[in-house]
Amino acid sequence: MLYIIGLGLADERDISARGLEIVRRAERVYLEAYTAVLLVDKEQLEAYYGRSIIVADREMVESQSDAILDGAAEKDVAFLVVGDPFSATTHTDFALRCRQNDPPIPYRTLPNASILTAVGATGLSLYNFGQTVSMVFFTDTWKPDSFYDRVAENSALGLHTLVLLDIKVKEPNLEALARGKTVYEPPRFMTVAQCAEQMLEVEEKRNQNVCGKEKLAVGVARLGSEGEQIVAGTLEELAQADLGRPLHSLVLCGSRMHEMEWEYMRDFAVDKEKFDAIWKRDYAAHA
Amino acid sequence: MLYIIGLGLADERDISARGLEIVRRAERVYLEAYTAVLLVDKEQLEAYYGRSIIVADREMVESQSDAILDGAAEKDVAFLVVGDPFSATTHTDFALRCRQNDPPIPYRTLPNASILTAVGATGLSLYNFGQTVSMVFFTDTWKPDSFYDRVAENSALGLHTLVLLDIKVKEPNLEALARGKTVYEPPRFMTVAQCAEQMLEVEEKRNQNVCGKEKLAVGVARLGSEGEQIVAGTLEELAQADLGRPLHSLVLCGSRMHEMEWEYMRDFAVDKEKFDAIWKRDYAAHA
Repeated sequence: MLYIIGLGLADERDISARGLEIVRRAERVYLEAYTAVLLVDKEQLEAYYGRSIIVADREMVESQSDAILDGAAEKDVAFLVVGDPFSATTHTDFALRCRQNDPPIPYRTLPNASILTAVGATGLSLYNFGQTVSMVFFTDTWKPDSFYDRVAENSALGLHTLVLLDIKVKEPNLEALARGKTVYEPPRFMTVAQCAEQMLEVEEKRNQNVCGKEKLAVGVARLGSEGEQIVAGTLEELAQADLGRPLHSLVLCGSRMHEMEWEYMRDFAVDKEKFDAIWKRDYAAHA
Repeated sequence: MLYIIGLGLADERDISARGLEIVRRAERVYLEAYTAVLLVDKEQLEAYYGRSIIVADREMVESQSDAILDGAAEKDVAFLVVGDPFSATTHTDFALRCRQNDPPIPYRTLPNASILTAVGATGLSLYNFGQTVSMVFFTDTWKPDSFYDRVAENSALGLHTLVLLDIKVKEPNLEALARGKTVYEPPRFMTVAQCAEQMLEVEEKRNQNVCGKEKLAVGVARLGSEGEQIVAGTLEELAQADLGRPLHSLVLCGSRMHEMEWEYMRDFAVDKEKFDAIWKRDYAAHA
């Protein structure tokens, strides 16, 4: 049996009791380590689980999946995924490969916490979220702005938008690659401030008042861990906020933001007075 | 410290390793038991956790919260919640009460799996969901249809809608109440079939082709457990489907349903041929 096991968000103790049992008895244990990361390293997981772990990078999952699935019809193989198994399409693809194998390989997924729901810690109601979008690192020549259309759709309905921030893990250095060498760049994680800045930059260009300077938003960092941090404010304020270590995410508030959501969130505001004034002016009437 | 601990979806082993540590050492352990239920009873939780558990019903949480919070400033109190702590507004309210207490009571939430993300097991991409709606049991005289407007908003954008189904736990029998006695009705859990039927009934009345007979949908039951069941088909087919024991949920597919989502989901179809034909006719062009 292939077990695709969600690890939750923070550290080695966020795995479920059932997941831990499986990890401890499985033939092999893989850790998917390119769509998200925990706040602890592999060694800490290994020490707590009492097992050695094979790190599966993108290349391994996408082109050597047979090696991962080898023997899974008879023995238990654990494939660990940060967050929830279905938070990334890669894992759906993996499950599909099991089903379409001849004969099919039995698999089971163990759900766990995901940023998609942990973001409820902001006080924003999970019922009032529209579609989720991703934000990639802009470069001088590449500034994809399709997120803007999705956010605009949510905003038109008064819904919140969760923005998931780019992660670059094990990216080859292009200059080295051109010289025939594979050297990996240090990992990069987008911050709330970078995301807010990119949103303001695109707003400048598209100009439909979807993510302008005075839109209310909330940045979150290391949700689910003891050091979790939540900062609310305007996008302009968040572009200056420092939420410390990764991982970060951002939520742009929709105009249907209810009074109870406001009451909960204002405690996290950079500037409470400003936060209240903007909420009253632009949000309260729609709530 | 008050710990609001998500239990996940299926049974006693879905609690996180960290959550289990806290439960085992906490001064008191409460179980919230009216917005959702696990697939196992309290006794099974108590046996596995090695602790006795106080069941907190709606009345207790809403009017005796002081008793729950008593001493939480100095000692650890665990408040267990099925699914994720922020999946229900009651728990946000509870955290707010801690913060607004004088002096504030320290609290921490431990996220866990939620139906909002576990529904990814259907193969539908979590990025393509719009706002979540709830469906209550209709009576002869009370058939609230505000869900229809929300679903219509999602549909107009081509987004999927997760429909959470009504649960009636510890509801007083009204006839007995009129005679001055408090007798509780047996618990009731809405099925996928009942939900599909109610959606068809409202479509009949509202007639905007939002949730008609040939709309594709997927029903899920007991997600995250070994006995999880997923059935895909038209709403008309789902109105006849029997997914067995609770809890059930339903997702109405949006027209942006991508080919990869279709490929994954069709394995669950009641009638694959019909499923494919409708997908090709009404969905594929928008994907």
